[in-house]
Amino acid sequence: SEFKVAILTVSDTVATGLGPDRSGPRAVSVVNASSERLGGTSIVATAVVPDDVQKIKYMLQKWSDVDKVDLILTLGGTGCTPRDVTPEATKSMIQKETPGLLYVMMRESLKVTPSAMLSRAAAGIRGSTLIINMPGNPNAVAECMEALLPSLKHALKQVRGDKREKHPRHI
Amino acid sequence: SEFKVAILTVSDTVATGLGPDRSGPRAVSVVNASSERLGGTSIVATAVVPDDVQKIKYMLQKWSDVDKVDLILTLGGTGCTPRDVTPEATKSMIQKETPGLLYVMMRESLKVTPSAMLSRAAAGIRGSTLIINMPGNPNAVAECMEALLPSLKHALKQVRGDKREKHPRHI
Amino acid sequence: SEFKVAILTVSDTVATGLGPDRSGPRAVSVVNASSERLGGTSIVATAVVPDDVQKIKYMLQKWSDVDKVDLILTLGGTGCTPRDVTPEATKSMIQKETPGLLYVMMRESLKVTPSAMLSRAAAGIRGSTLIINMPGNPNAVAECMEALLPSLKHALKQVRGDKREKHPRHI
Ligand code: NA
Repeated sequence: SEFKVAILTVSDTVATGLGPDRSGPRAVSVVNASSERLGGTSIVATAVVPDDVQKIKYMLQKWSDVDKVDLILTLGGTGCTPRDVTPEATKSMIQKETPGLLYVMMRESLKVTPSAMLSRAAAGIRGSTLIINMPGNPNAVAECMEALLPSLKHALKQVRGDKREKHPRHI
Repeated sequence: SEFKVAILTVSDTVATGLGPDRSGPRAVSVVNASSERLGGTSIVATAVVPDDVQKIKYMLQKWSDVDKVDLILTLGGTGCTPRDVTPEATKSMIQKETPGLLYVMMRESLKVTPSAMLSRAAAGIRGSTLIINMPGNPNAVAECMEALLPSLKHALKQVRGDKREKHPRHI
Repeated sequence: SEFKVAILTVSDTVATGLGPDRSGPRAVSVVNASSERLGGTSIVATAVVPDDVQKIKYMLQKWSDVDKVDLILTLGGTGCTPRDVTPEATKSMIQKETPGLLYVMMRESLKVTPSAMLSRAAAGIRGSTLIINMPGNPNAVAECMEALLPSLKHALKQVRGDKREKHPRHI
């Protein structure tokens, strides 16, 4: 069956109503446009939280443990300012790191802009849910997804525990 | 004197007798073929364990602390399925991470296949032993070794504590 | 105002007077030569410590928490010998990791020499201080700085909490 996707916008500005959520809707579009290459996806939840470790963790836990979504994309909060805590919240919730996903996102993002080196994005697995931090910039979401697409369907099948995906080359 | 190498195949399938160990023998061949460039190697142990954190840790500890091998290569269990736990077992046993070795393995593996991004391989140092996770795919072992060979001899000398290796360029 | 920079040479040899500190003065030159591209810098402290976790931690804490420097560069102790402990000391002091900075340093260093893969450099943020491990080799300091320069000013502004730096592309 198709993969359940949830999208979490992390932004003080958006959460307090001081600005529109440009990242969230863009991420929804990107996922929907990628659905076929991902083997079918359904956006089952979206939410906005401020740059607050506890509030980020709460949503990651709910969507992983209760709602059993296959993929959570977080948007924003991955920079180097004092308020940027999305990676710390994410790392405290994942049980397994997926450094290769970070590698390809960093490599591809650096082709667009050197400021990609400021990204502190984390990614990993909690139960049967893959959690990936993406930048808050709406354009960057598409670029990160592009970097992941060659193997994201494969990753989602593995995380779900599909036996036939167990022994691919190079893993 | 030559470097002592141990090779650990991590696979439920092989450990339960449901399939042959194709990775282990290939890794033995790759190490033997690389022996000269590594300054001389001797395979002192090979073993097969299931995808079980405790069993993986036991072998890593025995080979590091008791048998004092210079290099342990693990094969398999680095993907994203629920049974893949080799990186977690490895990270719990190493005292120092070696992220540069992971970087070059990831970079080179991605040249072969995008599914290399699913590898969650870890690597690091325990006492005077270097431990490196490699994929279970037999061909991938050769490709990862190729990525490491330009500096693996140097790394092994450093881990062993050879003073003359202390201040190379860029470290 | 300009960024306060402190430089820590980590070396048993230098600390015990058995050799000159070639890395420290070179790093001072590199920072001064980069000052304009960094938005103005002032070297406020330099020190030499042996390869000792507690002594490294003490300096990192003092410069971060008491002296409130913007940037600490450590030099040396990032290799794979038993005495190399700078990354471990650094990781125990940082509150947030900055993996993208490590990525670009590794990528650029590998263009100079394959032995760059032996670097275990760490980097991250403690309070309003950015801490970056660099190699002990004097030439390597310049090469690592070159890799960081396209976005280091940006990083330092973010770490300091400059609001206008909050939403750059790709973070
Ligand atoms: Na690269």
